[in-house]
Amino acid sequence: MHFMTALKAAWQQRNSLLCVGLDPDPAKFPAHLASRPQAIFEFCRDIVDATADLACAFKPQIAYFAARRAEDQLEALIEHIHTHHPAVPVILDAKRGDIGSTAEQYAVEAFERFRADAITVNPYMGRDSVEPYLAYGDKGVILLCRTSNPGGSDLQFLDVGAPGRQERLYERVARLVAEEWNASGNCGLVVGATFPAEIARVRELTGEVPLLVPGIGAQGGDIAATVQAGRTMDGCGLMINSSRAILYAGQGEDFAAAARRVAQDTRDAINACR
Amino acid sequence: MHFMTALKAAWQQRNSLLCVGLDPDPAKFPAHLASRPQAIFEFCRDIVDATADLACAFKPQIAYFAARRAEDQLEALIEHIHTHHPAVPVILDAKRGDIGSTAEQYAVEAFERFRADAITVNPYMGRDSVEPYLAYGDKGVILLCRTSNPGGSDLQFLDVGAPGRQERLYERVARLVAEEWNASGNCGLVVGATFPAEIARVRELTGEVPLLVPGIGAQGGDIAATVQAGRTMDGCGLMINSSRAILYAGQGEDFAAAARRVAQDTRDAINACR
Repeated sequence: MHFMTALKAAWQQRNSLLCVGLDPDPAKFPAHLASRPQAIFEFCRDIVDATADLACAFKPQIAYFAARRAEDQLEALIEHIHTHHPAVPVILDAKRGDIGSTAEQYAVEAFERFRADAITVNPYMGRDSVEPYLAYGDKGVILLCRTSNPGGSDLQFLDVGAPGRQERLYERVARLVAEEWNASGNCGLVVGATFPAEIARVRELTGEVPLLVPGIGAQGGDIAATVQAGRTMDGCGLMINSSRAILYAGQGEDFAAAARRVAQDTRDAINACR
Repeated sequence: MHFMTALKAAWQQRNSLLCVGLDPDPAKFPAHLASRPQAIFEFCRDIVDATADLACAFKPQIAYFAARRAEDQLEALIEHIHTHHPAVPVILDAKRGDIGSTAEQYAVEAFERFRADAITVNPYMGRDSVEPYLAYGDKGVILLCRTSNPGGSDLQFLDVGAPGRQERLYERVARLVAEEWNASGNCGLVVGATFPAEIARVRELTGEVPLLVPGIGAQGGDIAATVQAGRTMDGCGLMINSSRAILYAGQGEDFAAAARRVAQDTRDAINACR
């Protein structure tokens, strides 16, 4: 199924704009998992099973798997999601960016090896670095635009406009996506919850393009401001990501139940603002 | 050993500015390797052994390994280089870029799991996305600046200067690195051979910062123009990368010998211009 079709169905059927980020850090796992050889998979699987009916998407962050030689556990996790929760699309958070011939390899990694439904991509190298992902057609390609971290302003907030017409770099990225790269309707954009005014600006520039919004929860972004700035006319259009606040809500054997409670509260808090 | 110390020693002792890029594509391998389970490792190992005395660095591109579930072969390859050619530093071409907590995981992947001496990093997310790599101190951090691909101009060539003072985005990246991020002297920059005037500009902005220059060979960049634009006072300062032209110089069982001939010709062509 096309990523956008799956995402829209998940928004509606689950009544949720919540994206559950899967950033598994074994140092933060409950003690009973610590010595298990497949701890990363088991931890994420239990989180997934406890939150799947509350989520419009899952977003595993590949660095947490790669740092621990656990690509096989990432494969198993995505396979588990497709098998047991087929209505929830998987966004591989990889933020790749390279020349076309190399981007083709990264696209194989994301879409064929890991079987992700969408991938995050860095726009710094421009159009031909994005095309190999777009070429898959039914996969989502979510471009970094305005990121939620402090250093995000170093480049993204620079004025690249013609004389007398201010345009920030992140606005140019949004415009490139809306006017050129999204010709097949499979693009999204990453805009941090820490910058609601910029979420509103990106929404204004991009029409109905889905926005992946990290930065609520541990990073301190405001839910109400995010929803008001980023929702589309039908009250959707957003994948509001929470990772650490959900994953590490509990420290005991009931960690998945604790995660579910936070996920439910977060989904409801989002829905209260739609 | 500090990456910069190793790189300077390799430039001098090997009399070479040639970086051999390792982008192993099994579809282009000699027929006798095709069915071997460790073909990627064996192909790269033979290229490495045939060219190590001609190279100032090796640059494996991780996407080619990741697309084929061959991270174990990448580990074995880097281990092989460290064991048999310890004087040649290894640059992991990964172009990572993420928030600080995720960048810490990518740094573990590159420097602890794969034991690379340096990594390529994307600057789009700004300073805190680069700091976890810089924190290793003895490792090299090579930031994308002006890339060799056609889409490189989409963002990198935008004017971000104050009114009346043109400054391209790639120039701002070079300046950020030279003035801020390189405080510990472990940064480098990627500048494509397809843009000699911009190599010269980056050299002007960054003093002695080493430049990793892709784009000669298959991508058509000019060696003489690259060397003249980018060399430092002592005739070094450059890691001029060639991947495909060396790797796929031969198609038979003597592919490594063919690769060596092209590597030697390329090194000599570079040296003739220093």
